[in-house]
Amino acid sequence: MAGNSIGKEFRITSFGESHGRIIGVVVDGCPAGLRLSEADVQVELDRRVPAQPKIVSERIEKDSVKILSGVFRGFTTGAPICMTVENREVDSSSYEAIKDLPRPGHADYTARVKYGGFNDYRGGGRFSGRVTVALVMAGAVAKKLLSLFGVEVLAYTKAIGTVKMSGALSFEEIRKRRYETAVRSPDLECAKKMEDAIVSVRKEGDSLGGIIECIALNVPAGVGEPLFDALDADIAKMLLSVPAVKGVEFGAGFQAAELKGSENNDAYLLEKGKVVTQTNNAGGILGGISTGMPVVLRVAVKPTPSIAKEQHTVNLARMETAKVKVGGRHDPCVVPKAVPVVESAVAIVLADHMIRAGFIPKVLKRRK
Amino acid sequence: MAGNSIGKEFRITSFGESHGRIIGVVVDGCPAGLRLSEADVQVELDRRVPAQPKIVSERIEKDSVKILSGVFRGFTTGAPICMTVENREVDSSSYEAIKDLPRPGHADYTARVKYGGFNDYRGGGRFSGRVTVALVMAGAVAKKLLSLFGVEVLAYTKAIGTVKMSGALSFEEIRKRRYETAVRSPDLECAKKMEDAIVSVRKEGDSLGGIIECIALNVPAGVGEPLFDALDADIAKMLLSVPAVKGVEFGAGFQAAELKGSENNDAYLLEKGKVVTQTNNAGGILGGISTGMPVVLRVAVKPTPSIAKEQHTVNLARMETAKVKVGGRHDPCVVPKAVPVVESAVAIVLADHMIRAGFIPKVLKRRK
Amino acid sequence: MAGNSIGKEFRITSFGESHGRIIGVVVDGCPAGLRLSEADVQVELDRRVPAQPKIVSERIEKDSVKILSGVFRGFTTGAPICMTVENREVDSSSYEAIKDLPRPGHADYTARVKYGGFNDYRGGGRFSGRVTVALVMAGAVAKKLLSLFGVEVLAYTKAIGTVKMSGALSFEEIRKRRYETAVRSPDLECAKKMEDAIVSVRKEGDSLGGIIECIALNVPAGVGEPLFDALDADIAKMLLSVPAVKGVEFGAGFQAAELKGSENNDAYLLEKGKVVTQTNNAGGILGGISTGMPVVLRVAVKPTPSIAKEQHTVNLARMETAKVKVGGRHDPCVVPKAVPVVESAVAIVLADHMIRAGFIPKVLKRRK
Amino acid sequence: MAGNSIGKEFRITSFGESHGRIIGVVVDGCPAGLRLSEADVQVELDRRVPAQPKIVSERIEKDSVKILSGVFRGFTTGAPICMTVENREVDSSSYEAIKDLPRPGHADYTARVKYGGFNDYRGGGRFSGRVTVALVMAGAVAKKLLSLFGVEVLAYTKAIGTVKMSGALSFEEIRKRRYETAVRSPDLECAKKMEDAIVSVRKEGDSLGGIIECIALNVPAGVGEPLFDALDADIAKMLLSVPAVKGVEFGAGFQAAELKGSENNDAYLLEKGKVVTQTNNAGGILGGISTGMPVVLRVAVKPTPSIAKEQHTVNLARMETAKVKVGGRHDPCVVPKAVPVVESAVAIVLADHMIRAGFIPKVLKRRK
Repeated sequence: MAGNSIGKEFRITSFGESHGRIIGVVVDGCPAGLRLSEADVQVELDRRVPAQPKIVSERIEKDSVKILSGVFRGFTTGAPICMTVENREVDSSSYEAIKDLPRPGHADYTARVKYGGFNDYRGGGRFSGRVTVALVMAGAVAKKLLSLFGVEVLAYTKAIGTVKMSGALSFEEIRKRRYETAVRSPDLECAKKMEDAIVSVRKEGDSLGGIIECIALNVPAGVGEPLFDALDADIAKMLLSVPAVKGVEFGAGFQAAELKGSENNDAYLLEKGKVVTQTNNAGGILGGISTGMPVVLRVAVKPTPSIAKEQHTVNLARMETAKVKVGGRHDPCVVPKAVPVVESAVAIVLADHMIRAGFIPKVLKRRK
Repeated sequence: MAGNSIGKEFRITSFGESHGRIIGVVVDGCPAGLRLSEADVQVELDRRVPAQPKIVSERIEKDSVKILSGVFRGFTTGAPICMTVENREVDSSSYEAIKDLPRPGHADYTARVKYGGFNDYRGGGRFSGRVTVALVMAGAVAKKLLSLFGVEVLAYTKAIGTVKMSGALSFEEIRKRRYETAVRSPDLECAKKMEDAIVSVRKEGDSLGGIIECIALNVPAGVGEPLFDALDADIAKMLLSVPAVKGVEFGAGFQAAELKGSENNDAYLLEKGKVVTQTNNAGGILGGISTGMPVVLRVAVKPTPSIAKEQHTVNLARMETAKVKVGGRHDPCVVPKAVPVVESAVAIVLADHMIRAGFIPKVLKRRK
Repeated sequence: MAGNSIGKEFRITSFGESHGRIIGVVVDGCPAGLRLSEADVQVELDRRVPAQPKIVSERIEKDSVKILSGVFRGFTTGAPICMTVENREVDSSSYEAIKDLPRPGHADYTARVKYGGFNDYRGGGRFSGRVTVALVMAGAVAKKLLSLFGVEVLAYTKAIGTVKMSGALSFEEIRKRRYETAVRSPDLECAKKMEDAIVSVRKEGDSLGGIIECIALNVPAGVGEPLFDALDADIAKMLLSVPAVKGVEFGAGFQAAELKGSENNDAYLLEKGKVVTQTNNAGGILGGISTGMPVVLRVAVKPTPSIAKEQHTVNLARMETAKVKVGGRHDPCVVPKAVPVVESAVAIVLADHMIRAGFIPKVLKRRK
Repeated sequence: MAGNSIGKEFRITSFGESHGRIIGVVVDGCPAGLRLSEADVQVELDRRVPAQPKIVSERIEKDSVKILSGVFRGFTTGAPICMTVENREVDSSSYEAIKDLPRPGHADYTARVKYGGFNDYRGGGRFSGRVTVALVMAGAVAKKLLSLFGVEVLAYTKAIGTVKMSGALSFEEIRKRRYETAVRSPDLECAKKMEDAIVSVRKEGDSLGGIIECIALNVPAGVGEPLFDALDADIAKMLLSVPAVKGVEFGAGFQAAELKGSENNDAYLLEKGKVVTQTNNAGGILGGISTGMPVVLRVAVKPTPSIAKEQHTVNLARMETAKVKVGGRHDPCVVPKAVPVVESAVAIVLADHMIRAGFIPKVLKRRK
């Protein structure tokens, strides 16, 4: 147990359940002297819930953050920052009927086995996507911290089901447009098709997954610790802990397996006196350490397991086969909500590693 | 720094460099009472080096393990187990010429930036694939431990470059044949094509990557800790720390992103009174906890960056563009060597998590 | 940074400041299936504040705990348990005047140096004794958990200044009477003298320290991990992190340094078929592992640094010598308040180690 | 389990047994660019064994260190440093006779319970004082690192049994003379009495303990992490893990419990523009953070449990009372050997914390 914390210098501890009183996070190790307000966190939380009701759950989660500790007179103090949001719009009624019927694709069964049936199963409890609110709150702090050092993390939807973005957009376009579309794709035309795909699958009572790409700009060369604390290893661990993520790849990723060395190697060049690479198949990381090129990665998000269609399951109380039809309010596709989550997750790891590598000091400045 | 250890209960610490005196590992937390000999470890080390000289480096590494501590009268004592192999066939001559010329695709540049030029660059130093010998030694202990609880870890080469295994083999076939072929593929016909592809690319002075699949059998349901210590998250972290790995996916993985929920969800069934799933798109893990189905994952291995072709680089001492041609002895494809490494890596994480979840006790039995 | 957590299996994370919104704690790793209510925690919090106004600060801290997560239908779920109390009776007015005048014996100076002046200095902020409320909340959970396995932790005041308890009381007497006296000494006669000493020193505008003894009963033999995670090492770390503690000793402790081996060694005996020792100079721990005898330790608590007398200090804004007289409401002796804190601290370490050693399972039972 | 490592940035992993092949340590996280040779480590190892045969065990341990990794061309590389010494003068014959007879005061009984009888009991195995050789090797690295930043750690024997040093010596005298006497006391006159006491108790077949004081000079203000990673907490944890240590106190320590606040508080002064304290009852640490004054602490070392006198024990195989007389070669007093061990232990924690607090960079310089 005791796995609800992650990070070494910038360390977060997550708590709270989908249908409990709150979702919360403690950020320990944020340097002192960072200007931080609830508004800074709120803006990121608001990004988690797309405005378009067509493609999201009917559960309206207006999450209002409270900072309970660690900030004094507008600046972080170096003490742990506890942030919470209340769970307001909770309707647990539909869960009683299915509490012995594990939903396929969900953690209902594994959680029950692991916790002897004591887990809070309402809305998936600790295993709900709602728990990612904690990541977004912590991620807001990480992003603000990184921004002081020029580092920016941009994620966007690359594919929804079989609808894929083709062609590359500039960082500028990604930065500006990714949160303009409901599906969080900066390619407006493609975004429309993705939205249609979601609306269509929702009508079928089914769901879709997709692929999110994430780019971190201006990460200096030299970030990443030896061997097991490789930058990519720590990012992968963080992302695989996000519900619904089933794979992660860096740079050319799985495609690299098909290339020859001469194609995949990124040649070094000098650009304005700085060492850069001609291509970036490495995704900005070699030997677990950043190269100074953009860190580029993609995650595979599975289709939402909660679907309106009837599915085969087992009644665990009676140990007999059964059928289950998931009621309640569910997102037909969690990819759009996952975009700011991926940004947050990557930002948290980068903040941790930039402190570890000495690029971010533990006291940002001295108060006069 | 201080990232050369991984695991919480079954915890390993890696040390040693490619061209230094030794490669070593300390395994801390192995339960007391496990029968263990140097021969148990040697058999795994021997698997790391395929017998066919056609497809491997000319550096002949006959690695002989020594167990220096933690074993008394044939059994583990509960004390840390230190194991080492000496580096015998070391030829560092070719590295002096290129010490200021970072090889594209290698960690030469990032290591130099990170360690201020004090890193042992000979043969890649700490960033050499040779360091995986430490994983294999620790993995041998993990595998022996897991075998007492029925758990078996099988990896094999699924693709080399564009040559891919098609069709599924039985676990029995995989178990029997994977180490019979030089490329570590259990599909004998496909293995031949893979071998040809490697021989061919070697002649070009180029290299290939590939995909390794790994299956863990008989992992009981309930293995995996909350949230950030999810079983898949910890496996991903471990695998991304293996040199040349650029991606990891579980179950349907990236393919899941294209499926609908109704296709991807694994329906529950009863089989001889046990809860199983009809399909295994989840790869045996839901919510970071094992389902009781086989754990299935794949890693993408990039092509060896060391190639005989001339490449563009930068002379870091003079800060001017340059060309580099990597001499020395290199594997045209590290995938075959990586197969037992992936098995070891997964076995280590499983051993750690099975202890954490209480499936493996900390004292296996009491000595009479 | 990131040092606000402690423990490996039963792991707590502390947050909140003396004059902030709340004091809180997250307990991660508490086994599922423990019956737990706010009342269980409240009873321990109430013990922190002796009823007698004569010997305590005028700040009346009626701390009401809220359990925000991790408990469902009266039982722990295995998810992190977040608990908070609000800071109500806060008067920060006296701190503005002395914010540049570090109080001798306090952490004002060191905190300012470390956090660049961004620390919340009101009431000592994170360095206030008030932060021990977090320990007491977590300790309440640990005690309840330990009680299921027969383990009980009893602390009491052994000395206040030069007034010392002489003679040993039975465990029964300690258990019954320690919270009956304002000073938390089970020796009623001695308690009266201690109280007088505190009242007297308060009149002088001065303060007193003392010694607390703590006994853990029924800890089974075999608790304690190898070498650096020795049971006594982990208890010592925890206790030295409690404000005002300046020393810790186990069993005969510093007295052992004057004994001969033949006097200090505890001979083994058989008692009802169980191995016991005739004496307990080891304090129940040998080689960092519990012997099965009571764990016995003592901590030295320094006199409260906040005193009404004028003291020499330095004005850190002007860098010139100055004088400071601490106003506000302060305890003339923190020893009585520290008694339940010491109990909690030791209980938390024992809970962690009993889980680690396998004496407490991670799921206490299975819900029907 | 898995407790054989300690430290976060400067992290050591200990391995090896008293009568096994080697004693070893891995230092992970030592900054790159530290000049380091085997001779640097050897000088500290040699200090562990006083030259005078009158007061030490007859086992002559000429320990020769080998550095197996992490050093390249005379400098640390940032990679883990593995160091070992072989166990040469091993005579295990006397242990077979007493393997079922736990020696009072030793960890024989607790180790057997914990490890199910699989522990290597020869010479105490992992619980032998000999394991402190690992601390001394790692401590040599820590000391060399600290010396670059002006920090020096001096320990010395303050008391042997009832013979106590009175009066304070200057740091200069302590530095120069502590290793000149067999008992490691810088007070030559007192040292003679201590030596006599040891010779005398040895004749009786008995043993003595004592008190070691340790002073760390020039530790800058601001070293120590929040709450549970307080500098004193981490030093205490490290020291209590050293065999035979039963207590630790900082500054005035247990004596502080008898003082009034006005006596114990250290007034602040300005000295050449620097904030200092008039007295140092705090032992250089307030709120877990260094004040800039010398860090001062004392540990209580119990008398060696191995004595020639007959003692009561229990035959654990037959579960009946028995007697045991410890043969073999034992130190009548381990305090002199423990002096460099305490220095090493404190140096390791300081190195770790000075890196954590940012006073020591992770790369000391850049290689030209």
